[in-house]
Amino acid sequence: MKNELNFSGGPGVLPASVLAQAQQAMGEVPEVGLSILGISHRSDWFAAVVAEAEANIRALLQLPDSHAVLFLQGGATLQFSMVPMLLLRGSGKTAEYLRTGYWSSKAIPEAALEGPVRVVWDGAPEGFHRLPHAQDLDCSPDAAYLHYVSNETVEGTQFHDIPGHDGVTRVCDMSSDFLSRPIPVDRYDLIYAHAQKNLGPAGVTVVVIRKSLLDHVPPGLPALLDYRSHLQAHSIYNTPPVFAIYVVLLVTRWLLHDIGGLAQMAALNQRKAEALYAVLDQYPGLYRGWAAHADRSLMNVAFKLPTAELERTFLQQSAAAGFSGLAGHRSLGGIRASIYNAMPLASVRALSGFMEEFSARIAQ
Amino acid sequence: MKNELNFSGGPGVLPASVLAQAQQAMGEVPEVGLSILGISHRSDWFAAVVAEAEANIRALLQLPDSHAVLFLQGGATLQFSMVPMLLLRGSGKTAEYLRTGYWSSKAIPEAALEGPVRVVWDGAPEGFHRLPHAQDLDCSPDAAYLHYVSNETVEGTQFHDIPGHDGVTRVCDMSSDFLSRPIPVDRYDLIYAHAQKNLGPAGVTVVVIRKSLLDHVPPGLPALLDYRSHLQAHSIYNTPPVFAIYVVLLVTRWLLHDIGGLAQMAALNQRKAEALYAVLDQYPGLYRGWAAHADRSLMNVAFKLPTAELERTFLQQSAAAGFSGLAGHRSLGGIRASIYNAMPLASVRALSGFMEEFSARIAQ
Repeated sequence: MKNELNFSGGPGVLPASVLAQAQQAMGEVPEVGLSILGISHRSDWFAAVVAEAEANIRALLQLPDSHAVLFLQGGATLQFSMVPMLLLRGSGKTAEYLRTGYWSSKAIPEAALEGPVRVVWDGAPEGFHRLPHAQDLDCSPDAAYLHYVSNETVEGTQFHDIPGHDGVTRVCDMSSDFLSRPIPVDRYDLIYAHAQKNLGPAGVTVVVIRKSLLDHVPPGLPALLDYRSHLQAHSIYNTPPVFAIYVVLLVTRWLLHDIGGLAQMAALNQRKAEALYAVLDQYPGLYRGWAAHADRSLMNVAFKLPTAELERTFLQQSAAAGFSGLAGHRSLGGIRASIYNAMPLASVRALSGFMEEFSARIAQ
Repeated sequence: MKNELNFSGGPGVLPASVLAQAQQAMGEVPEVGLSILGISHRSDWFAAVVAEAEANIRALLQLPDSHAVLFLQGGATLQFSMVPMLLLRGSGKTAEYLRTGYWSSKAIPEAALEGPVRVVWDGAPEGFHRLPHAQDLDCSPDAAYLHYVSNETVEGTQFHDIPGHDGVTRVCDMSSDFLSRPIPVDRYDLIYAHAQKNLGPAGVTVVVIRKSLLDHVPPGLPALLDYRSHLQAHSIYNTPPVFAIYVVLLVTRWLLHDIGGLAQMAALNQRKAEALYAVLDQYPGLYRGWAAHADRSLMNVAFKLPTAELERTFLQQSAAAGFSGLAGHRSLGGIRASIYNAMPLASVRALSGFMEEFSARIAQ
């Protein structure tokens, strides 16, 4: 029960049915008869796990054959480097980045190690409360690529449109909203997402890549940092994080079969977010949302209270009521309710109820 | 029970008590009240997990303060690159490698991307049956470093002495025998070991590094590939593989408190290996050990049978008897019994008994 009141920014909540299967697998994977921690990554069983996880992601995204799905290690942070190693190094071009929050800011210096970077839009002076829209952006049609973060986990902002030119390679860090809604996936050339928000445990990163990007790879890349190694080896180039990938499989099965797909997931996520933002809108003096209305995230609802003391009281009382993970990111403070795919609507309603009661107690 | 008859080369057997605790943690870590898959890597609890895992490894190795312990991602394969990025790139020196089997062969081309490499000894022409000893080696006192693999998992060979000059930086891939025996750790400058042999699940790699190696780091390394990032952040630079590190903690507790330390572990490993090698020595016409006697591994017992058909029969009958993971590595074929730390002596005795019976059946 407490697991379903875990509003952590990640690693975060997973479906109860997935946790139950993961627990069983620690003792014995039924079709193998061994603990998942002792099953060889070269077994037929594990090859089938990878194949089904990929097939499920392809089905959920309606992914065309032009794109491959890879399971890697190193988190989004390693993608901050692998992307410019592939697309910027030696290209003679400039990479363009949107700086919209904590995570997109982390990606930029790693790219700058590989070549020239232009920050097309910088939200830092405004405190990352809002995202750029088409009229704010002057993207070059000749950029090596455009990189942006679709959902800024810390600030709780989320793109609801797609920036950039369709003719320019589009790279998106979807770590915190991958598989949370349908996307026009053919408009993306490279998508990456670490698992520990919507997909599974920390330790695996999903990459969706247009295979033609691999027609020209700079020489001299370490094999593990060359996407081709993983593509050719069906994500088993070296020993992959077997358990984490297995849980991703379980989560994608849940999305397909229990939820019914990304349209259904998005509708549910919309209802969850509305339940919390309605409270923010009702008590704007108490719950001060960080994100501009148009850019509110459906994944992370970040807000401040008028004083640090009230925030401490809120966290203490919410913890006493069974909620956890509500402290804001250490860089921003305040409160953050992360309501990823696996967070039940009932838990969100419980939190919105708590917030209304808290407001009433404060007003007394 | 079947878990304890899993002779897989890795991911492999883990202690039954560790699997039981890992299973409980999927539902709820007792001291937190949440599934381990939903606990934030920035929580006090997880900082304590990392600190205790490090402290346990320090205690087991009697590690001096000169060395740090890090928990990284990417397996040994990423270390194949991170080591020469740190120690070879721009050094003006040559790195020296011992080519003693499948895994050391994999490390060499990755190093060659970063600078000149000299293969001091190459066992390939002899089929990797034996390891070099002091009289075989002409290591340079001016090398950037010497790299070797202490235990070749595929061929089943293991160094029982320490090659190289103590004045030269010594780097050792101990992926398959780390924490299986006491080592004079001050004679090593950098040790790395992925977890999935003796330490835990696939997805985390332990690095023991002499901190003074980090006084001079080449400029321009991606943050994730710079050991300093991980040292400064106490192995929580980006989201680490929380569950895998937790299992490493459980395994190190087991080593310290249930086994009693590395001397006791080594004595037990010696008995296990002797039980199998005794059968090889008793039936040399049937069980044809790959490794030269002096270089036999205490972790991986690799052998061939006279015909491929006999090997198939051996694998079928052993599987019917409950044993698993006995097929040799795909590069070598044959049979391999991996008897890592967590493999119980009773299971090894059961296998040696099976091998004697199999020999008797064949002779009929």
